[in-house]
Amino acid sequence: MNQIFSARLSDTSDAINSALEHILSDDARSGEQVRPPRLMAAMRHGVLNGGKRLRPFLMVECAALFGVARDEVVQAACALECLHCYSLVHDDLPAMDDDDLRRGKPTVHRAYDEATAILAGDGLLTLAFDLVADPTTVSSSAIRAELAHLLARAAGVGGMIGGQMLDLMAEGDALDESDIRILQSMKTGALIRYACEAGAVLGGASGQQRADLVRFGETIGLAFQLADDLLDVTSSEEAMGKAVGKDAVRGKGTLVGIRGTGKVREMLKSLLAEAEGSLTRFGEEASVLRDAAHYVVARNN
Amino acid sequence: MNQIFSARLSDTSDAINSALEHILSDDARSGEQVRPPRLMAAMRHGVLNGGKRLRPFLMVECAALFGVARDEVVQAACALECLHCYSLVHDDLPAMDDDDLRRGKPTVHRAYDEATAILAGDGLLTLAFDLVADPTTVSSSAIRAELAHLLARAAGVGGMIGGQMLDLMAEGDALDESDIRILQSMKTGALIRYACEAGAVLGGASGQQRADLVRFGETIGLAFQLADDLLDVTSSEEAMGKAVGKDAVRGKGTLVGIRGTGKVREMLKSLLAEAEGSLTRFGEEASVLRDAAHYVVARNN
Repeated sequence: MNQIFSARLSDTSDAINSALEHILSDDARSGEQVRPPRLMAAMRHGVLNGGKRLRPFLMVECAALFGVARDEVVQAACALECLHCYSLVHDDLPAMDDDDLRRGKPTVHRAYDEATAILAGDGLLTLAFDLVADPTTVSSSAIRAELAHLLARAAGVGGMIGGQMLDLMAEGDALDESDIRILQSMKTGALIRYACEAGAVLGGASGQQRADLVRFGETIGLAFQLADDLLDVTSSEEAMGKAVGKDAVRGKGTLVGIRGTGKVREMLKSLLAEAEGSLTRFGEEASVLRDAAHYVVARNN
Repeated sequence: MNQIFSARLSDTSDAINSALEHILSDDARSGEQVRPPRLMAAMRHGVLNGGKRLRPFLMVECAALFGVARDEVVQAACALECLHCYSLVHDDLPAMDDDDLRRGKPTVHRAYDEATAILAGDGLLTLAFDLVADPTTVSSSAIRAELAHLLARAAGVGGMIGGQMLDLMAEGDALDESDIRILQSMKTGALIRYACEAGAVLGGASGQQRADLVRFGETIGLAFQLADDLLDVTSSEEAMGKAVGKDAVRGKGTLVGIRGTGKVREMLKSLLAEAEGSLTRFGEEASVLRDAAHYVVARNN
């Protein structure tokens, strides 16, 4: 990974983490009464866990194409990260994927209890919309309302939650390639796409620019999932910090299972080319996003 | 209950139910890919269950004080009902209150399964913000953003979710009256207050009018919970359509437990007077809201 990109990713990750610590503090905000400390601790456990903050980074870098400073995007980016982390907390629950470890640490329901994990997830999801709609996030109410609507569609029954439902229902079934692509574009693709589209909205992008960034987001979203599927069959549990090989155990269909690792590596290359192609109109300004696409494909963690 | 009020409540309830059926259909909206039918069926099970739609009714009637027609409030009111119903679906889960019945029918996790109930709740919560932020709900983006922010604060860690957490943690503890009041104002009060405040926002209320309606909402929110606590010790399971007497079994503190049923009936009377007092400035126009306050106190179901 090139060092300038690496420093930039880690710098944004630090800024996001610092903002998240503040956002997830025990101190009640205006319009709130009491924030129960155990609930907040469980939410911090689910969020402040060493995640790389890829989605916030994409939002920040897409907005940066239009000259928007990182500070002006951080709160909207934190909203997206809270929403992403809620989905992990709920997905790990016993009734769902039943995972004990996440990034090498006990999952929220193991570190606390199941009821607290359900409420912590609900709290993070609700906080995501609190942040998006907060006047301190961005002064334009038109942008706040648009982001809230886009986020809800990306995260909802026709996006991430629907994708998780399709995934649960697919266990033991042999999905065909088209079903898998729809499932993955909903379950993981929708939020990555939103990260890029939100950056465009925050930057006041033209219709063409926005469409380019949406296509970029869709492409790397698919690449992200394929890279994850590859890792599931090639990595060690130690390197991943969570149980691996679970897809095969559960009989979940993946493109790796249908096409094989060699073919999927070829698909990743062509997705990378497509992602770079969608950035053509932005020229040199988009070099960080090009690096991000490489990072998504090459990540080993 | 007076017949004009009764007809008006039932008329609004019909309008809300009809809008909810449309909103919860299997048809994907713009920005959505596929709505998994089993997920949508579970959400409909959790929402289209014969609820009286009290919160939507309050929002509609508060907005009506300012001449806003019901049709212009229905979608925002449906958002609130989706959010209320998600909280019931998650509260009923085995890890939470572990209830098998709701309004005489199997709870969502009993009718479907636990994973589906978790996702159905997540889906309803997300859909609530989708609806609030949807341009078809209200044309002003400033109002949409404000409603989304108010709703998130009311429903979040310093509101409803926080209240549910306090409630879970209180099991077996002897809460004092002040703790119980905070818990109840968060767990059930915050959304009822929001219903009234949102009506004021939709109506373009002045600061004083909005403060009056917020006070009205807070007062009837407390009355609502006290009436519920009374019902828990005085009703039969058949009349309630769910298990009763559970608060006592769990050692949950209620004001009925601390003060006794006679004293709580007195408190309800004085809350009713306070609710009516907060409507003084609206004069005769607010007669439906006065009836609503009586209804909340007198309801036996």
